[in-house]
Amino acid sequence: MRAEEVLRKLGDERPLVHHITNYVSVSLVANVTLSTGALPVMAHAHEEVEEMTSLASALVLNIGTLDLDQIEAMLLAGRKANERGIPVILDPVGAGATSLRTNTAERLLSELEISAVCGNTGEVATLAGLSAEVRGVESLSGDAREAAEKVAGALGVTVAATGETDYVSDGERVLAIENGHALMSRVVGLGCASTAVVGCFAAVGAEGGGDAETAAEALAYFGLAGEVAAEGILDGPSGPVGGPGTFEPRLLDALAGLAADPGQLGGGLRVRELARD
Amino acid sequence: MRAEEVLRKLGDERPLVHHITNYVSVSLVANVTLSTGALPVMAHAHEEVEEMTSLASALVLNIGTLDLDQIEAMLLAGRKANERGIPVILDPVGAGATSLRTNTAERLLSELEISAVCGNTGEVATLAGLSAEVRGVESLSGDAREAAEKVAGALGVTVAATGETDYVSDGERVLAIENGHALMSRVVGLGCASTAVVGCFAAVGAEGGGDAETAAEALAYFGLAGEVAAEGILDGPSGPVGGPGTFEPRLLDALAGLAADPGQLGGGLRVRELARD
Amino acid sequence: MRAEEVLRKLGDERPLVHHITNYVSVSLVANVTLSTGALPVMAHAHEEVEEMTSLASALVLNIGTLDLDQIEAMLLAGRKANERGIPVILDPVGAGATSLRTNTAERLLSELEISAVCGNTGEVATLAGLSAEVRGVESLSGDAREAAEKVAGALGVTVAATGETDYVSDGERVLAIENGHALMSRVVGLGCASTAVVGCFAAVGAEGGGDAETAAEALAYFGLAGEVAAEGILDGPSGPVGGPGTFEPRLLDALAGLAADPGQLGGGLRVRELARD
Repeated sequence: MRAEEVLRKLGDERPLVHHITNYVSVSLVANVTLSTGALPVMAHAHEEVEEMTSLASALVLNIGTLDLDQIEAMLLAGRKANERGIPVILDPVGAGATSLRTNTAERLLSELEISAVCGNTGEVATLAGLSAEVRGVESLSGDAREAAEKVAGALGVTVAATGETDYVSDGERVLAIENGHALMSRVVGLGCASTAVVGCFAAVGAEGGGDAETAAEALAYFGLAGEVAAEGILDGPSGPVGGPGTFEPRLLDALAGLAADPGQLGGGLRVRELARD
Repeated sequence: MRAEEVLRKLGDERPLVHHITNYVSVSLVANVTLSTGALPVMAHAHEEVEEMTSLASALVLNIGTLDLDQIEAMLLAGRKANERGIPVILDPVGAGATSLRTNTAERLLSELEISAVCGNTGEVATLAGLSAEVRGVESLSGDAREAAEKVAGALGVTVAATGETDYVSDGERVLAIENGHALMSRVVGLGCASTAVVGCFAAVGAEGGGDAETAAEALAYFGLAGEVAAEGILDGPSGPVGGPGTFEPRLLDALAGLAADPGQLGGGLRVRELARD
Repeated sequence: MRAEEVLRKLGDERPLVHHITNYVSVSLVANVTLSTGALPVMAHAHEEVEEMTSLASALVLNIGTLDLDQIEAMLLAGRKANERGIPVILDPVGAGATSLRTNTAERLLSELEISAVCGNTGEVATLAGLSAEVRGVESLSGDAREAAEKVAGALGVTVAATGETDYVSDGERVLAIENGHALMSRVVGLGCASTAVVGCFAAVGAEGGGDAETAAEALAYFGLAGEVAAEGILDGPSGPVGGPGTFEPRLLDALAGLAADPGQLGGGLRVRELARD
């Protein structure tokens, strides 16, 4: 589904998106969800996760500061989401850095029906069994396109590998997204935030929610908001007038502005389908 | 107590306000507390909550991301606060969404002496046994005035139900607060933040801290700060120049600016007492 | 090592800094780490902390919202850091407020080899057995220089006691840092953030990482960024045009701007060695 249509539906329906996520970027993730047009909720207690997921239109699992209790909450919520047929989006933060993260990402992929995986290149490459360098939660190297295609092909899910260019594959098609701005790598949690946007889009997207085109449009909308947010920030009359700190609130403004008037997306989204190798 | 007097006392006394709160808006809540003139502290370990509450002038309990451990911490801290006679403010975030949240709000209200309950309309309506729609932590419908009056009457506590107009009732009086700005519903955690301000005001308010007038003045000050923050944000020469992202830091600026010079409140606070039905 | 050299090394090497920290200022701490040039990672699960520390170049322990599980994670990570010889920085947030905090700070100092302790005056004075007033996590009184010297002398570690003037001592030398701005005490978590910068500097600093000069240069860089961020914020044509809210993102901009071009530090850092008493 195209971004313009998705954003109109989000504004009309205001679906609930349930996040089980890390405590570093949680506030940003919640605000990004709200600015995109959905309603965020965070809930992790084993006593309520299933009930909360029952109210939601999508579930986003982010293992950025995982522990055993949280993993159990993810499994409980994920099974409920699967039972209800709502999309489950996984951000395998730090897969490749520690075995707990790699194993947990694999476990969630094996025990749950995941609609889409969104990670940086190194994380996705790790899941593909490809060589890549992950330093903490940062990807330092890897082939994003190859990683996305390989994981998507092996697992039969939509996979987004983000980097300078983002690649989304469902194992058949490969889409490249060229929106974005260099400042986006200078703010903590924008990877988590882009996954949240994929979750919002999936909440109102086509059947099952996690199709490649909808995910690609989500990333393009997010990247375009980054371009809008960066306008004017780096070109003051006497040099730079901003940086990563002021960029973050401007990004929320841009997401909200575009969501409120999706006609502005115009030809700004740069998604193209690649010929298969 | 009137806002101007409260803010002067806060600046002079800098009371400690102990928050046991959710991890989504915790940073905003702490900064709102500090900008209002109090000193925030967050502590939840069962081994220290009572000792921390012993140092505090008010305790704010917010169940936005509750779990069993945290509920136990709230009970320990709450009993200590009651023993010491300091005000305890409860924000029943998500009551009505899951039974854990509804039951926990009711349990805290039954096991502790709560001075004031501050929630959105749907949450307060849930506690009143009225029909309301809560989606996650967002209120979608309900009658704020009726909800506030009914809970206040039934429980004998001050109750604030926030919405486009906020209503505060102690079961006898009903006050309507008309300050605020539409952008305030576009930022995550501003409900939690308004409860924090009620907690700050209660810390230096009249005996017991949770009287209806002081709570209403707190909400009016918070709403006025929102109006100040929104000034200029939506009327750039070529359309909107800001949004929810840049609004949030400006709100902190406005809270701090008004707190530093309470004379500026002037006639800006729009609190009026309603005739009883 | 001088700040200019440290910042160039951080930009070249992008070392991983592992934080086990509080949930109030964690997002700010992560962004400050990234803006300074290092890569932040937060991980606390007992199953992965040691592995994450094995990838890191420095470990920062901050007890701002401690509990028993987190203390155990700090001990696991700290032992691994000691085994590997990477610097361990401790921020004893709230030492002096509750016995859990005081005892935990002392326990970490006794069971681990800490490279540097960074706290506010009251916290450090508490560790020195000096009288001081700590309200929650805020220092209200105490002699920063005396506290730093006494703890450094007693424990043989580098100690920074922050306040209007910051003092760093290794038990032999005492350095005073006079950079900074009054607005820095109006934003929650800037103490945690300054400790994070000390951690980043230690990650690429001289052998062992926690030497007094490198810590002092870190605090001076952080304080100078505060001065840059405050420029223009308080002198609008009709009075103040900003406050603590807009100051925070500007501080991140300033940290990133100075880190990207360390030549700008010029003569801006005001670190001076004091004659011993």
